[in-house]
Amino acid sequence: MRAVDIIIKKRNKGELTREEIEFFINGFTSGEIPNYQAAAWAMAVAINGMTPRETTDLTLTMANSGEVLDMSDVRNMVVDKHSTGGVGDKTTLVVAPMVVSCGLPVGKMSGRGLGFSGGTLDKMESIPGFRTDLTKDEFIQQINSIGLVLTGQTADLAPADGVLYSLRDVTGTVESIPLIASSIMSKKIASGAQAIVLDVKIGTGAFIKNMENARELSILMVETARLAGRKAVAVLSDMNQPLGFAVGNALELKEAIDTLFGDGPTDFLEHCLMIAGHMLTLGGIAPDPESGKRLAKKTIQDGSAWENFRKLVIAQSGDVSYIDDPARLPSADIIETINSPQFGYLSEINALTVGKTAVALGAGRSRKGDPIDHAVGIVIHHKVGNWVEVGEPLFTLHARDRETFERAKQDILDAHSFSPDPVEPLPLFYGVIE
Amino acid sequence: MRAVDIIIKKRNKGELTREEIEFFINGFTSGEIPNYQAAAWAMAVAINGMTPRETTDLTLTMANSGEVLDMSDVRNMVVDKHSTGGVGDKTTLVVAPMVVSCGLPVGKMSGRGLGFSGGTLDKMESIPGFRTDLTKDEFIQQINSIGLVLTGQTADLAPADGVLYSLRDVTGTVESIPLIASSIMSKKIASGAQAIVLDVKIGTGAFIKNMENARELSILMVETARLAGRKAVAVLSDMNQPLGFAVGNALELKEAIDTLFGDGPTDFLEHCLMIAGHMLTLGGIAPDPESGKRLAKKTIQDGSAWENFRKLVIAQSGDVSYIDDPARLPSADIIETINSPQFGYLSEINALTVGKTAVALGAGRSRKGDPIDHAVGIVIHHKVGNWVEVGEPLFTLHARDRETFERAKQDILDAHSFSPDPVEPLPLFYGVIE
Repeated sequence: MRAVDIIIKKRNKGELTREEIEFFINGFTSGEIPNYQAAAWAMAVAINGMTPRETTDLTLTMANSGEVLDMSDVRNMVVDKHSTGGVGDKTTLVVAPMVVSCGLPVGKMSGRGLGFSGGTLDKMESIPGFRTDLTKDEFIQQINSIGLVLTGQTADLAPADGVLYSLRDVTGTVESIPLIASSIMSKKIASGAQAIVLDVKIGTGAFIKNMENARELSILMVETARLAGRKAVAVLSDMNQPLGFAVGNALELKEAIDTLFGDGPTDFLEHCLMIAGHMLTLGGIAPDPESGKRLAKKTIQDGSAWENFRKLVIAQSGDVSYIDDPARLPSADIIETINSPQFGYLSEINALTVGKTAVALGAGRSRKGDPIDHAVGIVIHHKVGNWVEVGEPLFTLHARDRETFERAKQDILDAHSFSPDPVEPLPLFYGVIE
Repeated sequence: MRAVDIIIKKRNKGELTREEIEFFINGFTSGEIPNYQAAAWAMAVAINGMTPRETTDLTLTMANSGEVLDMSDVRNMVVDKHSTGGVGDKTTLVVAPMVVSCGLPVGKMSGRGLGFSGGTLDKMESIPGFRTDLTKDEFIQQINSIGLVLTGQTADLAPADGVLYSLRDVTGTVESIPLIASSIMSKKIASGAQAIVLDVKIGTGAFIKNMENARELSILMVETARLAGRKAVAVLSDMNQPLGFAVGNALELKEAIDTLFGDGPTDFLEHCLMIAGHMLTLGGIAPDPESGKRLAKKTIQDGSAWENFRKLVIAQSGDVSYIDDPARLPSADIIETINSPQFGYLSEINALTVGKTAVALGAGRSRKGDPIDHAVGIVIHHKVGNWVEVGEPLFTLHARDRETFERAKQDILDAHSFSPDPVEPLPLFYGVIE
C-alpha cells in the first residue's frame, strides 16, 4: 500500500477501505507518512467528502491511536455531551450536575476556548484551585465516588486527532464535515462515552452558519456513533445570539450558579433541560426527553443539582467558598452599563461580534496557549424580539482598562440591531437528529 | 496576505489573483511557505482547477523564479517544440536539424526519460562524448554559431517548477491540467522560446489517455502562451502504439539517423514533417504548415538535415564516427526476433506495455537518477491494421540477459492483439489547436 495511491483514490472521489484509512492515519501519526502527504489527503477529503462508513473508520482509527478508556466495568452507562461551540455556552456547568442528580454518571473531558468560542475548563478555572488535569486513575476514581467529573483531555486520548487537527488548522481543511465529525467522535469514543448528546449550534456565533451543514454534520455524527456501536442524538440549537446573558468566564460561572438555584435566564435553562432530557433518555433513566426534562427540572427545585455541583468543585480541589459566595469570584476593574441609544425591537445581537469582543476584552484566546482573564466579559440585558426603550440598560461591560472598554463598547453597540416593527424571538432549537 | 487564506479560497473554488499566486509560489520556493501548505494548495488546484488567467500567472511566476533566457538579441526568432512524452518518440532528433536547415534556429532544452516515457537527452547520450550539460554561455554561443542546440535544462531555469513538481509527484497532484500546463510552459518561457509547437500525445502510451483532457490541456497551453506574449500551436497526436518501430535509446537514435537519410518509418517521418511544418510556420519561414512540411521534406532529400545533425553532434563533443557508422553504437548481448504465434490483423500494440517493458529491459528509469542501458530496447515490425502471418517476425528484442529477455518476450507478445476482421490503421493526428 502506498500513501500516494490512497491520496489519488480520494482525489478521484473514490471510497477508501478501512485498511487504507488505517494505513494512512497510523502512518501519519507515527511519522512514516509525511505531513505534506497528509495535507494533500485532507484537502482531497475536504473537497470530495467521505461516506458515513469512511467517517466511522477514520473516527475509530483516531480513537484507537491512543488510550481508549473503558468505563464498562466502572459504571454500566456513562453519558457524555458535546457542544460544537458557541458564545455564552455554559451548558455543561448546569447539565452535568442535573444529570448526575438523576442517577446517571457524567464523566466529561472538556476543552478550552479558542477564537470566539468559550471553553468549559476556562469557566471552571474561575474557581481558585479547581483542577482540570486529572489523571486517568483520578478520573475513574471520581466517577466511582461522586459520579461526576469535568476535566481536560488526558494527554494520550486520540493523539492522531491531535496531529491531524494541527495540520488541518494551517492547511485550510478545518471546514470539512467528515473531518469535523470524526474529530469530535474520536475523542468522545476514546474517552469511554457509550452514549453522547451532541449540541450542534447554528448561527453567527457558531462554527456552522447554515442549517444544511448542521444537518449534514449531525446526521454523520449520529450515524458514525451507530456504526461504532454507540448511541448518539444531535440537538440542533440556535447560536445567532448569545446563550443566556453572560459571556466571559467568571460571569458565565455566576450565571450557571444562578441557574442551578433556579434564577437563570429562561432560554439558557430551557436549553439545559433539553440537553439533560436527551442525556437521561439515552442513559435509560427517562422513557423520553420530555420526561427527562421534568426529572432534570426537579433537581433544580430540590437543590440536588447544586449539591452535586458543590461536590464536583470540592472533589477537584476548587475553593468552594467562591461558589458559595460568587461575589468573591474574579471581578473586573471597570464594570459599566451602557444604555440603549435608540428604541425599537431588537432584531439582532450578533453572537460572533459578542464572542470576538469577549476575546478582545481578554476573556478568550486568539491563539492556543494565550493567557486569559477570568473576570472580564459582557452581560447583555435583552434578547432578540425584546422591545427596548431609549436610555434603558442595553449591556454591561466588565473590562480591565479604558482602552479595551471603549473599543468593546462600540463593538457591542454595533452588535445590536433595532427594528421599528415587531421581531419574532429566535427559536431555541431547530430539530433533533437521532 | 496569509497562505492559509489563499488555500481556502481555492478550496472554495475561488479565482486567485496574480498577487496571491505570486505570494504563494514565491513563498513556497523561498521556503517561507511550508510544503504541507503547498501540498494542500496543489490538491485544491488539482480538484477545483484554474482559469487560463490563473494558469498564465502561475506559469509566469514559475518562469520568473529563476533565470529567464532572452534570445531576442541573439536571433530574432527562436522556436521550440515540446512533446508531452510518449513511447518511441525520437521526434526532436529529426525535427531540430530539419528546421535549422530551413533557416530557423532551434535552441532546445530537453529532459530525461522517467517511467514509461523516454527522454531526448538519453537518446543523444548513446553517442559517446555527447555533452548535454551546456552552460548558458555555451548555449547562446552555439545558437549563434550553428543555430542548433540540444541540451539539458540549465540548473536555475524555473526552480519554482522544480520544487513544486517534486511535491506534486508524492502528493497525488501530478494529473492536473493547469499544473501540467504551467509546468511545461514555465520552462519553455524561461528557456527563451518565443514560439512553441506543442506535441500533445494521447493514448495508452501517453500521460493523457483521453481526447477531452488532451484538448483541455492544449487549449490551456496555447491560451497561456498567448496571454504571456508568446506564440504556440498544439498538435494532438496518437500514442496508442509506439511512434515508428524502435523503442530504446541507441535503437531510436539509429531510427532517427535512418529517417534523416530518408529511410525511416513512414508514420514517424510524417509526424516529424507535421511538427517541423508548424515550427516553420510559427517562425515565419513558411506561410502555412503544408508549405512548411514541403520545406522540411526537402532538407531530408538534399542531405542538409543530416549535415546539421552531424554539426550538432560535433559541436557538443559527440564522437561523430558513431553516427557515421551506427553499427558502432552500443549494442545488446542478446538480439533475437520473435515470430508471430498467430495470424490476423493487428488490432493493438499497447504502447504503455511496450514503454514499461523497455524500462524493465534497462532502457529507462523507474526513479529519477537511475542508470540506464543505451543498448537495450524493442523494435516492433508492424503497426496496427497490418495483416500478420503465423511465423512472420513480430518484434525484435535487444536485452542484456536471458531473464529480462524472457520476461520482455512474454510482455511484448501480450502487448500485441489480433483480430480476424480488418482493422483500420490508427490516425497519426487528431487535430491542431492554435
